Amino acid sequence: MTSHPDDDSPKKKNTPVALIVGAGAGIGGAVAERFASGGYHVCLCRRSNASALQDAVTKIRAAGACASGFLMDASKPDTMEDMIAEIESTIGPIQVAVYNLGAQIGHKSLVETSHKTFELGWRLGTFGLFRLAKCLLPRMVQRHNGTLLVTSATAAVRGNPGQHSHAAAMGGRRLLCQSLNAEYAHEGIHVVHIVVDGPVLAPDTLGKMLGPQKFAALQSSRLLIDPKAVAETYWHLAHQPPSARTFELDLRSQQDVPWWNSISAISKL
Amino acid sequence: MTSHPDDDSPKKKNTPVALIVGAGAGIGGAVAERFASGGYHVCLCRRSNASALQDAVTKIRAAGACASGFLMDASKPDTMEDMIAEIESTIGPIQVAVYNLGAQIGHKSLVETSHKTFELGWRLGTFGLFRLAKCLLPRMVQRHNGTLLVTSATAAVRGNPGQHSHAAAMGGRRLLCQSLNAEYAHEGIHVVHIVVDGPVLAPDTLGKMLGPQKFAALQSSRLLIDPKAVAETYWHLAHQPPSARTFELDLRSQQDVPWWNSISAISKL
Amino acid sequence: MTSHPDDDSPKKKNTPVALIVGAGAGIGGAVAERFASGGYHVCLCRRSNASALQDAVTKIRAAGACASGFLMDASKPDTMEDMIAEIESTIGPIQVAVYNLGAQIGHKSLVETSHKTFELGWRLGTFGLFRLAKCLLPRMVQRHNGTLLVTSATAAVRGNPGQHSHAAAMGGRRLLCQSLNAEYAHEGIHVVHIVVDGPVLAPDTLGKMLGPQKFAALQSSRLLIDPKAVAETYWHLAHQPPSARTFELDLRSQQDVPWWNSISAISKL
Amino acid sequence: MTSHPDDDSPKKKNTPVALIVGAGAGIGGAVAERFASGGYHVCLCRRSNASALQDAVTKIRAAGACASGFLMDASKPDTMEDMIAEIESTIGPIQVAVYNLGAQIGHKSLVETSHKTFELGWRLGTFGLFRLAKCLLPRMVQRHNGTLLVTSATAAVRGNPGQHSHAAAMGGRRLLCQSLNAEYAHEGIHVVHIVVDGPVLAPDTLGKMLGPQKFAALQSSRLLIDPKAVAETYWHLAHQPPSARTFELDLRSQQDVPWWNSISAISKL
Repeated sequence: MTSHPDDDSPKKKNTPVALIVGAGAGIGGAVAERFASGGYHVCLCRRSNASALQDAVTKIRAAGACASGFLMDASKPDTMEDMIAEIESTIGPIQVAVYNLGAQIGHKSLVETSHKTFELGWRLGTFGLFRLAKCLLPRMVQRHNGTLLVTSATAAVRGNPGQHSHAAAMGGRRLLCQSLNAEYAHEGIHVVHIVVDGPVLAPDTLGKMLGPQKFAALQSSRLLIDPKAVAETYWHLAHQPPSARTFELDLRSQQDVPWWNSISAISKL
Repeated sequence: MTSHPDDDSPKKKNTPVALIVGAGAGIGGAVAERFASGGYHVCLCRRSNASALQDAVTKIRAAGACASGFLMDASKPDTMEDMIAEIESTIGPIQVAVYNLGAQIGHKSLVETSHKTFELGWRLGTFGLFRLAKCLLPRMVQRHNGTLLVTSATAAVRGNPGQHSHAAAMGGRRLLCQSLNAEYAHEGIHVVHIVVDGPVLAPDTLGKMLGPQKFAALQSSRLLIDPKAVAETYWHLAHQPPSARTFELDLRSQQDVPWWNSISAISKL
Repeated sequence: MTSHPDDDSPKKKNTPVALIVGAGAGIGGAVAERFASGGYHVCLCRRSNASALQDAVTKIRAAGACASGFLMDASKPDTMEDMIAEIESTIGPIQVAVYNLGAQIGHKSLVETSHKTFELGWRLGTFGLFRLAKCLLPRMVQRHNGTLLVTSATAAVRGNPGQHSHAAAMGGRRLLCQSLNAEYAHEGIHVVHIVVDGPVLAPDTLGKMLGPQKFAALQSSRLLIDPKAVAETYWHLAHQPPSARTFELDLRSQQDVPWWNSISAISKL
Repeated sequence: MTSHPDDDSPKKKNTPVALIVGAGAGIGGAVAERFASGGYHVCLCRRSNASALQDAVTKIRAAGACASGFLMDASKPDTMEDMIAEIESTIGPIQVAVYNLGAQIGHKSLVETSHKTFELGWRLGTFGLFRLAKCLLPRMVQRHNGTLLVTSATAAVRGNPGQHSHAAAMGGRRLLCQSLNAEYAHEGIHVVHIVVDGPVLAPDTLGKMLGPQKFAALQSSRLLIDPKAVAETYWHLAHQPPSARTFELDLRSQQDVPWWNSISAISKL
């Protein structure tokens, strides 16, 4: 793991810490900014692109908030575990963790989907969340407090043609979240499975997958989900009091059609 | 319909209007207070108990907010329709409607459930929502704007022994909400189906059903859902921007167990 | 109720009895023929068209099997209850009941759906099943034996635009079935909710709704579900032993797309 | 891979071939016997215990039917692929494949679940099915014909405490099945996801997990699902004609309670 925990970060006493695993230019980045502006020290974590990571950290600090950046490859052993240990020892106990790693690889037929691709989908989509939970939730239990927000996708609730890897990874993610919730809710840990049911205004991921023309067309159609709006809902969920907590909800643009009424968004793109 | 639209209410120009159908001492009342404190003119509506209704209205006005009270029996013809017409002509266009009428009648075996009971369950649980939607949503469409928040229950997603009337009514409610959303979301109307998955701190309904002893025991167990906390989530949902809207979510106490992991709450009480 | 219990029917001792409510030219008629050829005395019941009913009865008898016909309007009081009492006293105890009344009315927007239409949808879609269950299941319980097969539709699991009445009625039907199963399975009663997820080769209902041209086009597309094939699955379900019983399953043509992958079939027609 | 394709097996011309992956003493073995007695050449496959495998093959042959046995470890590379190639070249084209590998490991808290255990759950529960499908379905497509029956579990539709590995593996399995069905149904391939929602009379697996006393108690309670009864339903599903096919169904003892009405069966054992 390469990391830079930013020793010169303006760490304040008693600032709560939020970890965002998968803090790119879409939902992850927007959630980081929202929690930073709400008073959290946010730890942004992504696999690659150190300069984009540094830019995101710098932008948050320029707004007067606290942020640290981490490069971490969740498909490699010990990376997640080391990062969490480092954050908790040098920055503070993680109060909110956001697991925002996607596993979408576009439309690939069964024949086109290699064993390696399918396994990588699982490593990022399911196993990485298990590793984060196994490492972090016991720590949260000792503190009787903690929130785990899991970004998920249509593929968690509906398999589509060409989505073998993605659907298997996300179906596993959803059921793992249910299992974590069943074991930990009564200990004060709030697990939420968020079904992001539509394309997101994320130039890094969807933008690259679609190419500039299709992405621009999608933007003007008002079908795209705005990460900033999503971040407001993440913030709300993270602060629901113990007496009225949500485990699962869906999010989509009002111009879009829910998964149960529509064909695959991937097919439509 | 007996109503008292409170001519002396401090109606302000451009104040948005929220209608709460089923504004008793539980979720309905708390939602009314939350929207009133957020700047809405709230219209509280309940079937009976004029003095409790007047007290709720008075309390909100004492806090400097706007409220009107309506007595309305949703099992009678034209009552819903007349009330909506009256509100829209004398108070203003309804921007947010909350359908909060329950149809829970406790545990009744099939043999004990009369035709009349089953029909009343449908009239309040399903048909009343249809009537509200049919009357109000076309008005909202003309204004390109409007929110319909529907309180629902575990029985909308899971049938239990002794819940024939309730489950049929709520199962109909959920699918009706899906149908309304499918027809109206792209017109700017936000429909939300909220699965309240557990007993609510509502002295009026659950308290009366259980009796004081069981209700007090439940209160000390921290299993009860706090209506004030629920109201915060209703407020959040009503203000999600068009680019990231929720259709369905669940709510329960962290001490409780989700419906998919547990036996019927009614059986447990 | 007008009925003709066919005094001259070749009633044999110990012949099990199957009641098919909604025995038209689609699934109901095919199920009647399948159970008749399997040794049941089948009681065919439909709302109207005495000559079609008589033809169906005659056809079954011509094949050497036992059948009786009943005209019964499930939207009227006491009709269901009187028919069941008559069958049980004159023909024999009903071992298998098939509830096959549909409530599909084609695409009707919310504005086009009258209160009367919505109520009739519920009377046939939900309340009729409740009445049948309330009348018949306690009799079955005394015999420690009985099967209730409920034909259902995509609209039981997914609401669509223009399906307000149908979705509410079928959503209620599904949850009622769950509630009945929860109360009666351990008493030996087998309740099955069958999601017929696609258009059926039923000239009486779909054929009339679509008109001859569209219906013929659909037939040649191999998208239509064959009632005879459905009847084989109903037969299998009715004879699952107590140690491995199904509550819910779906059925569609292999050329069709499941509801979770597709837009509304009604919209596609 | 160690295998013994039984050169002396009485292979008849035009006998259809059924492959059962996970042919132990429970559902797999019973399904093998049912398809053998129905005229299939059955290929029984299990990870270990060559003598039990030989006994099962011998028993089927003694009844005059065709069977071959294979030892295959689905957690190892190339084993599945080699076995399928061998069967298709030496015995004949596989018409029906049954994926019956379980991934249940009993109750293990998150802390007790090692990375290795979680990964093995996925290798057997999800990845093995992907490998079988990727290898076999394109062959079936060329023949315009083929059936894939997938045994699944409550954990595919509901996560429980102590079921992190199992729920993630089975949740992935279910969504993968949906994705396979979405891509292949219209090509004539019938994929079925069978939710075995309760403990099975399987001495090999459940018996060993519970120990003799608990298993005997369970047997006398009539809560156990009988593999022979399950096999009849698998037979029915494999022979549904193209015009009325099932993708998903549940199976349980009438004495048991469906997953949506009950707490975890594992917790109850």
